[in-house]
Amino acid sequence: MSWTISENKFGKSRAVSRGNKFLLANGYMGYRGTLDGDDKHDFVALSLAGLYDGVAGKWRETVNAPDPLFLRAYCDGEPLLASEADEFSQSLDMRRALLTVRTCFKKCGVSIKSERIVHFERMRELGSRVVIHADEAVKLRVEAGINGDVWDLNGPHLKDMRFSFNENGIRCECKTQELGVPLSTSLCFSLKPTSVESGEMSAKFFYDVELEAGEEFILDRIAYVGFGEHSSPSEDTAFADISAGYDAFFKSHIESWERLWDVHDVRLVGDRRAQLALRYSIYHLLILTPRTEGQSIAARGLSGQTYKGAVFWDTEIFLLPFFAVNDLDVARRLIEYRIKCLDGARQKAASYGYDGAFYAWESQDGFDACSDFNVTDVFTHRPVRTYFKDKQIHISGDVAYALIKYLSRSSDISILYDGGLEKLIECARFFYSYSRFNHTKCRYELLDVIGPDEYHERVNNNAFTNMMAKFTADAAVEWLEKVRISNPELGAEMDKKFGCDLAKKLADWKDKLYLFDEKDGVIEQFDGYFGLEDVKVDEVRSRLVKKNEYWGGSGGVATATRVIKQADVIAMLVLFGDRFSSSVVQKNHEFYLPYTEHGSSLSASMYAMSAIRMSKPDEAWQWFVKTATVDLSGKSKQWAGEVYIGGTHPAAAGGAYLTAVYGFAGLTFDEGQVAFLPKLPKKIRAMYLTVTQNGERKKVKITREGAKFL
Amino acid sequence: MSWTISENKFGKSRAVSRGNKFLLANGYMGYRGTLDGDDKHDFVALSLAGLYDGVAGKWRETVNAPDPLFLRAYCDGEPLLASEADEFSQSLDMRRALLTVRTCFKKCGVSIKSERIVHFERMRELGSRVVIHADEAVKLRVEAGINGDVWDLNGPHLKDMRFSFNENGIRCECKTQELGVPLSTSLCFSLKPTSVESGEMSAKFFYDVELEAGEEFILDRIAYVGFGEHSSPSEDTAFADISAGYDAFFKSHIESWERLWDVHDVRLVGDRRAQLALRYSIYHLLILTPRTEGQSIAARGLSGQTYKGAVFWDTEIFLLPFFAVNDLDVARRLIEYRIKCLDGARQKAASYGYDGAFYAWESQDGFDACSDFNVTDVFTHRPVRTYFKDKQIHISGDVAYALIKYLSRSSDISILYDGGLEKLIECARFFYSYSRFNHTKCRYELLDVIGPDEYHERVNNNAFTNMMAKFTADAAVEWLEKVRISNPELGAEMDKKFGCDLAKKLADWKDKLYLFDEKDGVIEQFDGYFGLEDVKVDEVRSRLVKKNEYWGGSGGVATATRVIKQADVIAMLVLFGDRFSSSVVQKNHEFYLPYTEHGSSLSASMYAMSAIRMSKPDEAWQWFVKTATVDLSGKSKQWAGEVYIGGTHPAAAGGAYLTAVYGFAGLTFDEGQVAFLPKLPKKIRAMYLTVTQNGERKKVKITREGAKFL
Repeated sequence: MSWTISENKFGKSRAVSRGNKFLLANGYMGYRGTLDGDDKHDFVALSLAGLYDGVAGKWRETVNAPDPLFLRAYCDGEPLLASEADEFSQSLDMRRALLTVRTCFKKCGVSIKSERIVHFERMRELGSRVVIHADEAVKLRVEAGINGDVWDLNGPHLKDMRFSFNENGIRCECKTQELGVPLSTSLCFSLKPTSVESGEMSAKFFYDVELEAGEEFILDRIAYVGFGEHSSPSEDTAFADISAGYDAFFKSHIESWERLWDVHDVRLVGDRRAQLALRYSIYHLLILTPRTEGQSIAARGLSGQTYKGAVFWDTEIFLLPFFAVNDLDVARRLIEYRIKCLDGARQKAASYGYDGAFYAWESQDGFDACSDFNVTDVFTHRPVRTYFKDKQIHISGDVAYALIKYLSRSSDISILYDGGLEKLIECARFFYSYSRFNHTKCRYELLDVIGPDEYHERVNNNAFTNMMAKFTADAAVEWLEKVRISNPELGAEMDKKFGCDLAKKLADWKDKLYLFDEKDGVIEQFDGYFGLEDVKVDEVRSRLVKKNEYWGGSGGVATATRVIKQADVIAMLVLFGDRFSSSVVQKNHEFYLPYTEHGSSLSASMYAMSAIRMSKPDEAWQWFVKTATVDLSGKSKQWAGEVYIGGTHPAAAGGAYLTAVYGFAGLTFDEGQVAFLPKLPKKIRAMYLTVTQNGERKKVKITREGAKFL
Repeated sequence: MSWTISENKFGKSRAVSRGNKFLLANGYMGYRGTLDGDDKHDFVALSLAGLYDGVAGKWRETVNAPDPLFLRAYCDGEPLLASEADEFSQSLDMRRALLTVRTCFKKCGVSIKSERIVHFERMRELGSRVVIHADEAVKLRVEAGINGDVWDLNGPHLKDMRFSFNENGIRCECKTQELGVPLSTSLCFSLKPTSVESGEMSAKFFYDVELEAGEEFILDRIAYVGFGEHSSPSEDTAFADISAGYDAFFKSHIESWERLWDVHDVRLVGDRRAQLALRYSIYHLLILTPRTEGQSIAARGLSGQTYKGAVFWDTEIFLLPFFAVNDLDVARRLIEYRIKCLDGARQKAASYGYDGAFYAWESQDGFDACSDFNVTDVFTHRPVRTYFKDKQIHISGDVAYALIKYLSRSSDISILYDGGLEKLIECARFFYSYSRFNHTKCRYELLDVIGPDEYHERVNNNAFTNMMAKFTADAAVEWLEKVRISNPELGAEMDKKFGCDLAKKLADWKDKLYLFDEKDGVIEQFDGYFGLEDVKVDEVRSRLVKKNEYWGGSGGVATATRVIKQADVIAMLVLFGDRFSSSVVQKNHEFYLPYTEHGSSLSASMYAMSAIRMSKPDEAWQWFVKTATVDLSGKSKQWAGEVYIGGTHPAAAGGAYLTAVYGFAGLTFDEGQVAFLPKLPKKIRAMYLTVTQNGERKKVKITREGAKFL
C-alpha cells in the first residue's frame, strides 16, 4: 500500500539522516525524527517556522525550541537506549503522519512502543504515547520532561530559561537572545509523577514503575510550543489534565491527514517504490504547508537550522506548483510572503545602489540572511568570499515569475491590488537599474551575476537571468497597463510613485535587453561559457584533493571548466517551455547533461522535465526517481566546504511532484482551464490524482491514452 | 667611492640571490652573477632579450642560451669549488660593469681570480679572464667550455644541439623548440688546449697545468652569442685567435661604461649607502637599455625567465622616466615597441569582443603571455584562475600615458606620424568599447577590472583605471585634432579608418565617463572598497596558514579586506599629480598606507613620490631606500603561491631614480624646458646629475636652495 517507510536497524552514525528522514511537522513546527532519549548530540531539534535569532558574529537562523518530548526509561539504574536494544524499528506512517519507534530489551524483558505526532490542526501542539510492555516482572524508572539544552548551529538562541510545574505538567519559559521574543513550552502528562526535578536547562517528571509480566505502563504527553503573542497559553492549558484527552487529540490529527491525502495524494500504478517515494515527497510538501499569514517555506523545510531557516527561490520555482494544483490559499500565501518582504528587498537594492526590489537570496522575512562568506575553505579553514547574495539577481525574476504563474492559475487579480503589482514593478525596476547599456552593440546587458549554477560566479549575461529579467519587464508592462483600466486608482498611485512613463521606459528597455548567444541551437549559459575547459564531471571530480572541498568560487575544481552545479540553461528551457521548440530543448539537454554535477537537489527535476519535453519520459524516469528519493536515501550532500548543509530537501520533493503531475500527467492550466497531455513512462500504467478547478475537486485518471475525469 | 658591491662569504643557499645581485647585462643579453663552475642547479642563465620559446602545455618564456663561460679547476682530481674555498669574495664594480670572484684554496696553495664582463658595445659578446696563482708548486687540470644543459623554468627550449671546435675554440649550434630559431654560441680561448672533449650537451677544452711557486696560469675567453640572423658569425670570428685581443676587448668595454656613467650618474652627497643603492639602481637601468629596434624591457630584466621575459606596464610607468632624462632615443624605442605590438593588442581586444587595442598584460612582442592561471594554490597544488590578463585594462592607458609623456618631453611629433597616433586612438577606442553606460546615473563606467592592486580582482570603477581611460581619451581627441592640421594626410587616413565622428564620439564619451567616488577627500579605490573589512596588513598577515600562499583571488587573506598589494589610488595621484592638491594627496597617503602590503616592488616609489608631494621628503626617504635596495638586500618575494617569481626588479630601480631625480631633485619638463623644484631630505646635502636639453648635456647641482647649472 506504499504508505510506510521504516528502518529495522539502529545505526549510531545515522542520527543526522534519521532526524531528517523521519521528520514530523505541520508547517508551524518541525520535530526531527530522533529518538525519545536523544539529546543535542543526536541532533534533536524542534524547529519553529519564521522565528529567527542572531548571536553576535554568527549567522542568524531559526530558533530551536526546548525539546518537550524527552523520555528515557531505566532498568536497574541503566538507561534503556535504542543503541543497545535487542530489537529496534522506526517507522513513519505517512497516511497518519505518525512516527513509531519500537524497541525490545531482553535483559530486563521489556518492549517499548513510542508513538509521536505533530498535530496538523492544533498546530502549536505535539503529542506522544509511550507504551512499555513487561514480558516479565520488572521495576523501571521513567523520566520524561523538557530538555532546554538544544542543538544549535549558531546558537545559543535562548536565554532567561525558567521552569515551573504542577502535578499535571511542566512549563518552560525563555526568550530569544537578539530580540527577546518570548517562547514557552508546556508539557502535560497523563500520569502524576513519583517525583519531579528541575534544573537550569531542563525539568523532568519521574515515574517509579513496577510491572508484572504482561502489564503495561502507558504515558501520554501533549506539549504546546508557542512564541511571541502565542507564548502564553492560559494556565489551564499549560497545566491541563490530559489523562482523558489524548485519544481525542490523536484522532483529530488522523482525521486531518485523511482529508489532506484525499485531496493531495497521487497514485502511481505500476511501481510501488516510486509510489512510496512520490507519497513521501507529497508528505514533505504537506508538512511544510505555511500556517500563518505572510509565512513561506524554508529551503530545508523544518528539519533544522541549515540555510538559516531562510526562504530561497526554491519556494517560487519548485514548491508553488504543488500548492497551485489543489491549495490556492496556500499558493497565495507564498506570494503574499514576498509582498510582505518588499520593503526589505527595496532596502537591499538600495544598499547596492540599485532601484526597485532586489529580493533576499536567503530571506528571513525580507532580511537577507545570506552571508558574504558562505563557504569555509577546507584547507585553510577560512571563510571564502562568495557572491550569492550580491549577484544572484534572478531571485527577483523568480519572485515575479511565481506571481504571474499564480495569477494565470487563479485569475485572482486581487493579489495585484494587494501589493502584487507594486512588487512586480519593483522587480522590473531593479533589473532595469542593474543593467548596463552596451553602446557599441546597442543593447542592455546584465553583467556580473550568478545564475542557478553557482559554481561560476560573477558571469555576464547568464541566459537564465536575462530571460527572467525580460519576463519580469514584460509582465510589469502588461499588468501595469491592464490595472490602469481595471483599477484606475491603483494605476494612478503607481504613476505617482514611479512616474507616468514607467511602462514606456520598461518597454523600450526590455526590447533592447540582450538575452543570450547560441551555437548550433545550444544556448550559451553565459558569455564565454563555451570557451571554458571542456571536461566532464568525472574528470573534474578526480581533481578533488579533499572530498568535501567546494567546487566553485575562484579556486574550485569546476570554476574554469564547463562543469556546472545544476540545471541552468535547462531550468530556463523548462520554465519558459512554450518559447522553445522541443528540438532546442533536446540539443541543450544533451549538451549540458554531461557537464552537470547535480550538486544541488534542484537539478534532477529540471532534467526530468526537459526529458519529458523531448517526449522521452523513460529517460525522465531516472531523474524523477532521483529527485523523489533524495531524503529517503539520505545520500545528499551534508557539507559545503566545512559548513553543515544537511536536512530535508523540499525543492526535491516539489520537483518530484512537478515531474509526476506537470510532467508525466502533463497538467496545464490554460486560462484557468485544466488540461492534461500525458507522457507516461513505461513503468507507470496509470495515475490517479485530484485537481481543483473553480473551487471544485476533480478526481482524474491518467493513462497513456489520456486523462479521464472520474 | 660607492661604486662596488661585494660579498665575502660564500652561501650555498644564496645561489638564486647571488645570480640576481651580481647580474651582468647589456640590454641584449644578461648573464647571471653565478660562479664559474656553477651549473643549472645553481641557476646559471644567459638570458636573451626578446627571444621567446614555448613548450607544449607550458608557459612561453625567454630562451636561456648555453652557458659559454663554464670553467672548473681541479687539483689532485678534486674540483676547486667556491663552496670549499678558504677565502671567497665576489664583487661587482659598477663603474666598469665588471664582476670579479676571488677564491683561495690552501690545501693546494692556489688563488684564483676570475673576471667577467658582458661587453656593452659589442653586445653579442662577453668575456672572462681567469688568473690562477700558485703560492707553491702545483699541478692542475682546468676545464672550460660551453655547457648546453641550461636552467629553464618551462623548458627545455633548445634542440638539435651540435658542437664543433678547432684549436682556438668551440662552437655550439642549436634551435629553439617552437619556431626553430637558430642560436649559436661561440667561445674562443687565448690558449690552445691540452685536450678537448665533446658530449651531447657540452664541449670542453682541458688544460694540464704545472705551476712553480709564484707562477700564474692566465686564460682569456671571449664568447659570442647570436640568434636568428645573427646566429652565424663568420668562421673566422667563431674560431678566432684571441690570444692577443682580450685586453683591447676589455678596454673598449670599460670606455663604454665611462661614457655611460658620465651622462647617467647621479651623485648623492650625504649618505654613502644610499649613493651606492642609487648607483646600483642606475646600473640596472643601464644594463637593460634596449639595443635593437622595437625592443623593450622585461619586468625581471635579463635576470632569468621569471614573468616569461615579458614586458609589463613597469616599462611605461617606472622605466621610461629614466631614459627620458638623458636618452630620448631609447625612450622612443620603448614607445615604438608598443607601436610594433599594436596588431597584437587589436587581436587581444577583438578576442574579448572589444574594439581598439587591449595591450598584453605580459607582452611578448604583442602576444599576451599572461596565463589564465597565474597562481598555483599552495594547498591543492592546482592552478588558480586569475584575471590579470582579462581585466587589467589600465595597461592600454599606461601605454597611452607613456606616449604622451614622451611627446611632451621630446616634442618629437614624428612619433605620432609613425604609428603613435593610431596607437593612441586605438587605446581610446578600447576603453570606449569596454565601458558600459549606466543609464540610471547617466554615466559611462568601467566595470569588472583589476587595478594595480591585484589582490582585488574584478572590481568596478577602479579610480586608477578610470583616470587612465579618461586621460587616454583626452589625449586621443586632442592629438587627433592637432594632427588633422599638422598632417592632413594622416588625419584623413585616421578618418577613413575610424570614421570622421570619432573625435566627437570620444569627446562626448569621456565627458560622461565616471571617475571615482570620494569621502572626506579620500578617493575610493573602487566601488565598495570602503565597505571591506577594515583591518591592517599585520592582522591580515597573521591569518596566513602557509607563508607563501597567495593573498588575493577569491580565497586569499586580503580579498575581502581593505588590504591592498600595492599603491593604487596613490599611484594615480602621483601620475596625475597636477590635478590633485597636496592636501588630497596627504589624506589618501595617510589613509592607504596602513592597508598597503607592498607586495609588489612597484609600490614603494609611489609612496615616496606622494610623500614628496606632501613636502615630506624625510618620510619619502624610507621608501626611497626600500625601492633602491630591493635587489641589493635580496629580500624580495621569490614565490607567488608555488610559482617562482625571483629575479631583479627593474621597476624598483626605475622607482629609485624617479624618486631621486623627479622627486628629491624635483625635475620637471615644462614644454621641453627643464626645471627643478628640489625637496631634499635631511640625509642629502646635495645632488649632482646630468640632464639633456635640446640635445645638450647639462650638469646640474641640486641643493636645498635650488638648482644650479654647472
